[in-house]
Amino acid sequence: MATLNATHDPARKSWVESANAADCDFPIQNLPLGVFRKGGGKAQGGIAIGDQILDLAAALKAGLFSGAAAEAAQAAAGETLNSLMALGNEHASALRARVSDLLRADSADKRKVETLLVPMSAVQMVLPAKIGSFTDYLCSVDHTKRMSQTGDMPPAFKSLPIAYHSRASSVRISGEPVRRPNGQFRTHDGKVQFGPEPSQDYELEIGCFIGPGNALGAPISMREAPKHIFGFCLLNDWSARGIQRFESTPLGPFLSKSLSTTISPWIVTAEAMAPFRAPAYPRDPADEPFPHLSSPENKAEGNLDLALEAFIVSPKMKTSGAKPAAVTRTSGLNTYWTFAQMLVHHASNGCNMAPGDLLGSGTMSGPSEESQACLAEKNKRGTEKFDIGGGEMRTWIEDGDEVIFRARAARAGSVSIGFGECRGRLEPAVPWPS
Amino acid sequence: MATLNATHDPARKSWVESANAADCDFPIQNLPLGVFRKGGGKAQGGIAIGDQILDLAAALKAGLFSGAAAEAAQAAAGETLNSLMALGNEHASALRARVSDLLRADSADKRKVETLLVPMSAVQMVLPAKIGSFTDYLCSVDHTKRMSQTGDMPPAFKSLPIAYHSRASSVRISGEPVRRPNGQFRTHDGKVQFGPEPSQDYELEIGCFIGPGNALGAPISMREAPKHIFGFCLLNDWSARGIQRFESTPLGPFLSKSLSTTISPWIVTAEAMAPFRAPAYPRDPADEPFPHLSSPENKAEGNLDLALEAFIVSPKMKTSGAKPAAVTRTSGLNTYWTFAQMLVHHASNGCNMAPGDLLGSGTMSGPSEESQACLAEKNKRGTEKFDIGGGEMRTWIEDGDEVIFRARAARAGSVSIGFGECRGRLEPAVPWPS
Repeated sequence: MATLNATHDPARKSWVESANAADCDFPIQNLPLGVFRKGGGKAQGGIAIGDQILDLAAALKAGLFSGAAAEAAQAAAGETLNSLMALGNEHASALRARVSDLLRADSADKRKVETLLVPMSAVQMVLPAKIGSFTDYLCSVDHTKRMSQTGDMPPAFKSLPIAYHSRASSVRISGEPVRRPNGQFRTHDGKVQFGPEPSQDYELEIGCFIGPGNALGAPISMREAPKHIFGFCLLNDWSARGIQRFESTPLGPFLSKSLSTTISPWIVTAEAMAPFRAPAYPRDPADEPFPHLSSPENKAEGNLDLALEAFIVSPKMKTSGAKPAAVTRTSGLNTYWTFAQMLVHHASNGCNMAPGDLLGSGTMSGPSEESQACLAEKNKRGTEKFDIGGGEMRTWIEDGDEVIFRARAARAGSVSIGFGECRGRLEPAVPWPS
Repeated sequence: MATLNATHDPARKSWVESANAADCDFPIQNLPLGVFRKGGGKAQGGIAIGDQILDLAAALKAGLFSGAAAEAAQAAAGETLNSLMALGNEHASALRARVSDLLRADSADKRKVETLLVPMSAVQMVLPAKIGSFTDYLCSVDHTKRMSQTGDMPPAFKSLPIAYHSRASSVRISGEPVRRPNGQFRTHDGKVQFGPEPSQDYELEIGCFIGPGNALGAPISMREAPKHIFGFCLLNDWSARGIQRFESTPLGPFLSKSLSTTISPWIVTAEAMAPFRAPAYPRDPADEPFPHLSSPENKAEGNLDLALEAFIVSPKMKTSGAKPAAVTRTSGLNTYWTFAQMLVHHASNGCNMAPGDLLGSGTMSGPSEESQACLAEKNKRGTEKFDIGGGEMRTWIEDGDEVIFRARAARAGSVSIGFGECRGRLEPAVPWPS
């Protein structure tokens, strides 16, 4: 059972007042890590609390950490969190425990720490890690069924978490614009054309950052897997459907995915998610996984009970001040495979995983209409339109549309935590260079 | 037309005698770059000449370079060649010109330079670059036909160079052992099993290292492409066929490829290959590529006229001292798409390419029997055996077998150059961790 400790205590409040609001994503029970930049300054690590960020370099300098917490703060204070990920979750846990003590309502250090907070409104968030490799999975039964031409599941779906290597270089932080790609696709009359993608989609996913990792040739067991799962974020696996349909036989998606991937800036640690673990997806007894992908702990609490939402804001809605249109409401429970299984499968051939590697859960669609977590499902593979409000219709994402993801974990007896936002606005394709 | 200069002059000889042998891979007309380590020392950049390596850091210190050549030597002297790749081919060319002058038979600097040479036999070669991303293509018509269940070509094959993102973290240098992966595959009776891959294969490919690259959202044109092609190596895309067949629907190969990829240590620069350019693959007029993948230069000389060979050495052959068994003889001309087209396609959606990114050509099979460049072709997808000498039979690679690739470019009027070797021995699968 995932261990809860004093940092999860629902009675704990912070002297940072904004952190105590019921709808705050970053109460003292969350304490996610990220990397920010003040003005033109250097990127540096911090921890979110309410609408503030604890500046880890400044807190270190003020002598607020010792032992493993100091080592962890040192590793997290720089331009990326990779060094902290490499140290492992015990170090991250020591840092969390100390920061929770510094920020709790009855902290003796309030005076000292107050001066080390930076308002979120005053910073720019950047990628939290140097992402060496990015792997994307296909783990939702319902997404897979709806995306299949025939409705059949791929033969390996229930034996292993199907995945492909995606592109690490084009992963970008929330808020950075996304360019509609140029590419080759078939038009309605079957002709192949090169030009701006006509069917731009989002995919609502959970991202998972890898911790210490393994040497080439040395697989990871299910028992060891939790030590290598550092934390989670939101991930928009922007998908160019016209390009994807044309290019994917026989080697899978390529340019349809590498145009850009947007992630939310705050990494919610595995420890912060401990109160929100849930059983793995229910399976037919005939479909039990191979022993190397199985453990009692994984079956009991391998999943993340996380509510996920996607919104679209059109240019017209932005002008009118209308509320974002909710286009998806789904859950982290809609995955047939857990992140521990994804990781163990990934390393089962000996493939080496490194601190800062990123896994994408795959589109988190569930069985209901509202849980369809990409437009290709919602529009029945391009054949239907839907209303985003006030009669404004969409089939795919249009230029100027912004896609926003949010996530929230809530359980009776725990303080609810959130992931912040993952945002990206689609800009028009660039004219082809002459 | 690729420009030839004094460094290509076939009359030029070196005072390093081993470089002047007719069968030497590294005559003064080649001068490939690599990274080596002496004893337990730091990795450092060097240039191959005959059986020696010019130590670039030592040559810099000796004051042998100035201007762009000095900047290039500085960028190439460290633990990776990424900085030189980022500077671009004009810098690499200035370095080549100066090193050619230092090493030519009538050089006034022979005395000084002699002391800066390190015998290849005294060093360990390491990866020449930090490889951010590795992309593998499917460009041979004959490989694609033979690997298809139906004999049909994929719909996009003639419209674009089909590719998938592969795994950068497991690319290894020639000589490092390769572990047979564990994985899931179907046995003959159709049951899915987890265990050591039964059908381990090699794929003989050419690797291409990328130079300066592009910003996200800023495609590369065919005219600009040659500026971003730094140089070439040999690449063994180790392929686990059982895993591949089971896992690849619908997202393409994943663990079947990420077990390990072996490359040869010396990067033969684009400039060194200038005398060995050849026309792009002949196309039906109906199959002309889209304008953004087309240029007169590419059509006239987009390909590499490079003879490629693969050998197997079994443990028995090693003991008996028998000659390696030649299993493939093929050519760099067997690609429907050139590296310039692969690169332009890759960046056509805006995907950003970085110095040190690696492209694999795909298996370089041609139409003839001997040009089949992987075992799955040679053994008719696992159904036939072949003799590797003295009656020793193979279907797939067996534990202890070493696979060796060699490449050589030769043309009348030019001094022939080689790529050195790309070697890897298959070791038994690891027992699954408990």
